[in-house]
Amino acid sequence: MKTLFLVCGLLASTALADAQERGKIDNPSNPMNQKKFALVVHGGAGTIERDKMTADKEREYRSGLEKALRAGYDVLNTGGSSLDATEAAVRVLEDDPHFNAGKGAVFTSAGTNELDAAIMDGKTLKAGTVAVLRHIKNPVELARLVMERSPHVMLSGEGAEKFATENGIRLVDQKYFFTQERWDALQKMKAAEKNRHAKMIITDQDRHGTVGAVALDQNRNLAAATSTGGTTNKRPGRVGDSPIIGGGTYANNTTCAISATGEGEYFIRATVAHDISALMDYRGMKLQDAAQIVLDKVVKLGGTGGLIAVDREGNIALPFNTSGMYRGHVDPSGQFVIEIYR
Amino acid sequence: MKTLFLVCGLLASTALADAQERGKIDNPSNPMNQKKFALVVHGGAGTIERDKMTADKEREYRSGLEKALRAGYDVLNTGGSSLDATEAAVRVLEDDPHFNAGKGAVFTSAGTNELDAAIMDGKTLKAGTVAVLRHIKNPVELARLVMERSPHVMLSGEGAEKFATENGIRLVDQKYFFTQERWDALQKMKAAEKNRHAKMIITDQDRHGTVGAVALDQNRNLAAATSTGGTTNKRPGRVGDSPIIGGGTYANNTTCAISATGEGEYFIRATVAHDISALMDYRGMKLQDAAQIVLDKVVKLGGTGGLIAVDREGNIALPFNTSGMYRGHVDPSGQFVIEIYR
Repeated sequence: MKTLFLVCGLLASTALADAQERGKIDNPSNPMNQKKFALVVHGGAGTIERDKMTADKEREYRSGLEKALRAGYDVLNTGGSSLDATEAAVRVLEDDPHFNAGKGAVFTSAGTNELDAAIMDGKTLKAGTVAVLRHIKNPVELARLVMERSPHVMLSGEGAEKFATENGIRLVDQKYFFTQERWDALQKMKAAEKNRHAKMIITDQDRHGTVGAVALDQNRNLAAATSTGGTTNKRPGRVGDSPIIGGGTYANNTTCAISATGEGEYFIRATVAHDISALMDYRGMKLQDAAQIVLDKVVKLGGTGGLIAVDREGNIALPFNTSGMYRGHVDPSGQFVIEIYR
Repeated sequence: MKTLFLVCGLLASTALADAQERGKIDNPSNPMNQKKFALVVHGGAGTIERDKMTADKEREYRSGLEKALRAGYDVLNTGGSSLDATEAAVRVLEDDPHFNAGKGAVFTSAGTNELDAAIMDGKTLKAGTVAVLRHIKNPVELARLVMERSPHVMLSGEGAEKFATENGIRLVDQKYFFTQERWDALQKMKAAEKNRHAKMIITDQDRHGTVGAVALDQNRNLAAATSTGGTTNKRPGRVGDSPIIGGGTYANNTTCAISATGEGEYFIRATVAHDISALMDYRGMKLQDAAQIVLDKVVKLGGTGGLIAVDREGNIALPFNTSGMYRGHVDPSGQFVIEIYR
């Protein structure tokens, strides 16, 4: 059952992919054809149950996704790059305590917060990724700087934070990342570990989550960005799929841009993001089919999650195999579509 | 011009791929058919110039590669797994100061040593990777433990080392990794940075290197392992392609096992290891063709390097686009073939 949230007050059932199938895009008189771009964001996939969600809480999640879409849309609508749009959207989600990235990052088993992020430019295949950050408010911003101002693709830990300060990013105290909800989730996980017979309800919401954005800009360039606090109770030093190019993040103008969310270990092993691109490139598969096939491979390995994807034509896909995924997209007519449940 | 070194005193021109093409493998009376397995190792690709290599030095490199092949061969010949064989071969190269991994790791810009490694099982797609290690003698051993004893795929920095001590691995002092040659290479790089007009000969040998092994065992399971000290003068915290599943390391029984060496940033961006697998899987391409096509993509991005590969039939490929790559393979008849130059 679909729940649509009409941000612009318009009937927003027109995903770009659908519109293209109906041939509207090819009609030059259609206003959707004037500016061709696409934007999709996610705020994590997992067990999201409607009956456990209050109306207030749902409104807050939707509002966060809407603000992220707005930030990315404003970039794309004024002719900005998909790189800038994905970075802008992800920054908004990093600053929102509801999502497991930046401010709302989950806790490691040591009670610390460690953040990963990545950004990739589909035009040049340039990429920047960061891992195990403890004092960076907006990891996606640092990933972008690694891409643009370092000779490297991936920096982690203290070395990454030293690079950050050298490039004008102010470090924040670990306290910045404290949220009661994430702290409680860690305590719940630790209690469940100690007493395996007790019936504890550990939802995916307590365990993991990720935010991300993919975009196609008016110059037909694709980009992807992902940011996460990882999984609750993870070992310190654990790196998930978000900063793994070809795992949780990938963009290539030849094919598509991907940002994944879910149990990162399975997404790394299945090289999810590059595999979708490869199926399109080498098998001529459509985005939605390729994305579904690769997500099915994750399930076969034992993993759950979802992803957002956009191709060079602006078609989008948002598959997930959990009960929900915080997600939204904006089409060229300016309509924002935000969904949570299946 | 090929230089062959006949370890077993036999004419060792029979790569398994060649033998198969000649149809010998399919003849049950041929002793090569009794035990079907394959092993390839590398000790890094780069500018390796014959006229700058002394006979003694060349003998030492060849001896190191031979010992690595021997370690892997002994595992495979007695029915052991490709995972055990690649780990055994890589451990030998990690312990050899000639190669940029373990003992012979290069120095970061801060004068420290930081090591990365990965191992992947082609049967289960399970993988373990480690990054930014400062006190681990054999990073490939720790990667294997991450795969088998942690819920994670990738651990980095101090968190990875804490996991190591919890699992019985003794930490070593940074002093263990000191070698005069690598230290001198760092000083040369730093001098060149300061005085860009001075003519400094900075060979790839001074800059980077990696070791790796890929194997097919008698149960037709593939595995890959890679280990490296990264690039000389790298920023602390830099992670290269070696511990990136799908980048510098990948194994999948459906297709092939890959271990790469070269300018890691380009190999990450080109998702080299998974792209070779995808070309075989989705285009039905032969191993050697797929490996060459993907290496050409790295060149197009501006990178240099090489890789070793083995497929499920035991065919091998060892392409590189530098003047040399330390490499060796062993075929089922027990012949070791070791080469350095193009």
